[in-house]
Amino acid sequence: MALDRPDLRARARAEREARTQLQARRVRRTVLRRDGMRSEVAGSDGSTRWLLNFCGNDYLGLASHFQVSGALQDAAALHGVGSGGSHLVSGHHALHDALEREIADWLQLPAALLFGSGFAANLAVVQGLLGEGDACVQDRLNHASLIDAARLAGCRLRRYPHADAQGALRQLRTLPEGAAMLATDGVFSMDGDIAPLRELAIVARVQQALLYVDDAHGIGVVGPDGRGSVVEARLDVEAVPLQLVTLGKALGGCGAVLAGDADLIGHLAETARPYVYTTALPPAVAGAALTAVRIARHEHWRRERLTALVQRFRARALRLGLDLMPSQTPIQPLRCGDNATALAMSAALDAAGFWVAAIRPPTVPDGQARLRVTLSAAHGDADVDALVDALATARDACADAARRTRP
Amino acid sequence: MALDRPDLRARARAEREARTQLQARRVRRTVLRRDGMRSEVAGSDGSTRWLLNFCGNDYLGLASHFQVSGALQDAAALHGVGSGGSHLVSGHHALHDALEREIADWLQLPAALLFGSGFAANLAVVQGLLGEGDACVQDRLNHASLIDAARLAGCRLRRYPHADAQGALRQLRTLPEGAAMLATDGVFSMDGDIAPLRELAIVARVQQALLYVDDAHGIGVVGPDGRGSVVEARLDVEAVPLQLVTLGKALGGCGAVLAGDADLIGHLAETARPYVYTTALPPAVAGAALTAVRIARHEHWRRERLTALVQRFRARALRLGLDLMPSQTPIQPLRCGDNATALAMSAALDAAGFWVAAIRPPTVPDGQARLRVTLSAAHGDADVDALVDALATARDACADAARRTRP
Ligand SMILES: Cc1ncc(COP(=O)(O)O)c(C=O)c1O
Ligand SMILES: Cc1ncc(COP(=O)(O)O)c(C=O)c1O
Repeated sequence: MALDRPDLRARARAEREARTQLQARRVRRTVLRRDGMRSEVAGSDGSTRWLLNFCGNDYLGLASHFQVSGALQDAAALHGVGSGGSHLVSGHHALHDALEREIADWLQLPAALLFGSGFAANLAVVQGLLGEGDACVQDRLNHASLIDAARLAGCRLRRYPHADAQGALRQLRTLPEGAAMLATDGVFSMDGDIAPLRELAIVARVQQALLYVDDAHGIGVVGPDGRGSVVEARLDVEAVPLQLVTLGKALGGCGAVLAGDADLIGHLAETARPYVYTTALPPAVAGAALTAVRIARHEHWRRERLTALVQRFRARALRLGLDLMPSQTPIQPLRCGDNATALAMSAALDAAGFWVAAIRPPTVPDGQARLRVTLSAAHGDADVDALVDALATARDACADAARRTRP
Repeated sequence: MALDRPDLRARARAEREARTQLQARRVRRTVLRRDGMRSEVAGSDGSTRWLLNFCGNDYLGLASHFQVSGALQDAAALHGVGSGGSHLVSGHHALHDALEREIADWLQLPAALLFGSGFAANLAVVQGLLGEGDACVQDRLNHASLIDAARLAGCRLRRYPHADAQGALRQLRTLPEGAAMLATDGVFSMDGDIAPLRELAIVARVQQALLYVDDAHGIGVVGPDGRGSVVEARLDVEAVPLQLVTLGKALGGCGAVLAGDADLIGHLAETARPYVYTTALPPAVAGAALTAVRIARHEHWRRERLTALVQRFRARALRLGLDLMPSQTPIQPLRCGDNATALAMSAALDAAGFWVAAIRPPTVPDGQARLRVTLSAAHGDADVDALVDALATARDACADAARRTRP
């Protein structure tokens, strides 16, 4: 019998063609240099230009903070680069340890565990705790890594309508057997809104489910001393036994720390495959994060500044009739609808000197393409004002263009 | 109806208890400082001591090389720490780009893509290319991340006996429909042997399967100019369309680069969830890796030195009757059998000043616990000689103890 398997290269090319038709191609843009929130980027023709960056996750301005970068340099001088191994063999370093303790102390939680990324940490939590016969119930807009974590775990996965605690309860009720986890983003990455954690905590308690909060975009930004959305919701470790702190967003570095109950974290540290079977981060990267956490904890003015900028942005944008989503965090998405509009808006902003990426499906649901504007404590008032004006101009230009092309 | 779900904390505690019984507990050991291959480690009682490290993956001695660490410092001074976003939004930096190009040039391959870890890259390759109805056939001893990648992809997964190309063929024949991937480690992480890549390439061609080689432990070490096990097997990109280079082992840093066919890599860069939905590595970490690759490419004496040490170690160890596994790479495992023996050997070596971790199930198959000795170009002849003597002494002491406790 002759074989006739699909060819993976041909399939990749066909899918690329389909994405081109849907205006869903994704192109990387290369940053050459940064200066505060300004980024010098390379054009496709070899030219370069400076753009004001409004689409990164450096909410507190720590990614290029001199003390954070200084900590990386000092630690690299002392400890070199690679950790040389996984945490359980020979890659675990005192700086990893110190970072875990600092975060446990910040959040007043019993235990903490460092991962190379938030993506890996989410995989570890769900795969490490749940298996066949168990249930994972998730918000429909949770981060991709949480959804994939449930697939990897082989547990049953049910999703509920966004931010709908009643929906979560209904889904848990459909799976009354097996251990259960209720998993939600704290701050939703593409929407900027905050999960209804107090209601979810009640649902989790009633349903004997473990509530897991991925606070990638909340930590450092939301809550007293930037302690995140769980503390903001006044929930303790009984209510939220595990939460995720990422180091690559407000903390300006890379990696992630899982924090919470000591038994659960001890279990994951010994058994979770995405923890056990991977190289530990360079100790110097942990050293930089340690300094970043200390700054985030103590420099309250960064959060105050950010809050003021968010209010300034929203007030001005709403005055100009911009279709903002209802977010109070530094993630301030502007609805565009179709891919073409989002791309046209992004291109118009680019021409005006602003970098705001168009976020399209599958990152967001179909028909909900948007500009995901993000603010940082390192932006100036004038930067924000100029952005809002550029957004309004771009919106008007796109509307004009749409009117002209209508038959 | 009253709910009665298993409690995840209680389950974690029970599993810890079971691991304790099986001598399968895993404890992290904290490195305080390094000096070449010597590591100062913390004891459980707060004391510290220096051990000669024979269990890391720093095969070329680049993890604490002053030029590599200098590159990290210089890049951090210029570019800060965090990338600030994912590669497709705003986190892609010229240093990431330069590293990808350097590796493509080294391996003479058309395209390359940087990931935060080898674990993530493996997930991306399989999940990004295969789905339901497709097949992934793997060596039984492949790395955990490859196995999990197939689970995540939702494809059919079949495993063949270690290094058995005929077995691979049989497994592929059982799944004649759907696209197929044949995935293997290049150098096996816990065994040190090299996959029969030329035979596997024939099987893959006959079965229209894509051959994917995870060369985490081969790159930098094996093959001409350290170009890895694929080049050593004289296979080109037609035969091996994708291969994985990790940066956290011989290259002394962290992260991984997928290299190979441009259509496949272009596809993964736009669509693979573990690539798209995660923060890019700090540009400075890529800068350090770039320097490490240049050193690995050009300083041939490091590989020559390593080869000489491997031969020296094996000759002396075999002369003393040590039960080495048949490996020609810097991974030189010593068979122990049960967990208790592996732990006792590791403890005896520790007392003698050597750090050699006991590798137990589930990292290796049941009943195949071992000491995974690894060599580095940064070890001295005398270090290796002293290790072999300590291994023989430890073996004799363990045998004596076993004899004494026998009834
Ligand atoms: C909500 C959420 N969780 C997890 C992650 C993954 O974290 P990391 O970028 O560290 O992999 C991200 C962003 O990438 C995120 O937005
Ligand atoms: C064969 C193999 N593949 C992949 C990995 C994962 O790479 P990383 O440590 O960069 O996650 C490892 C080691 O950890 C490995 O040994």
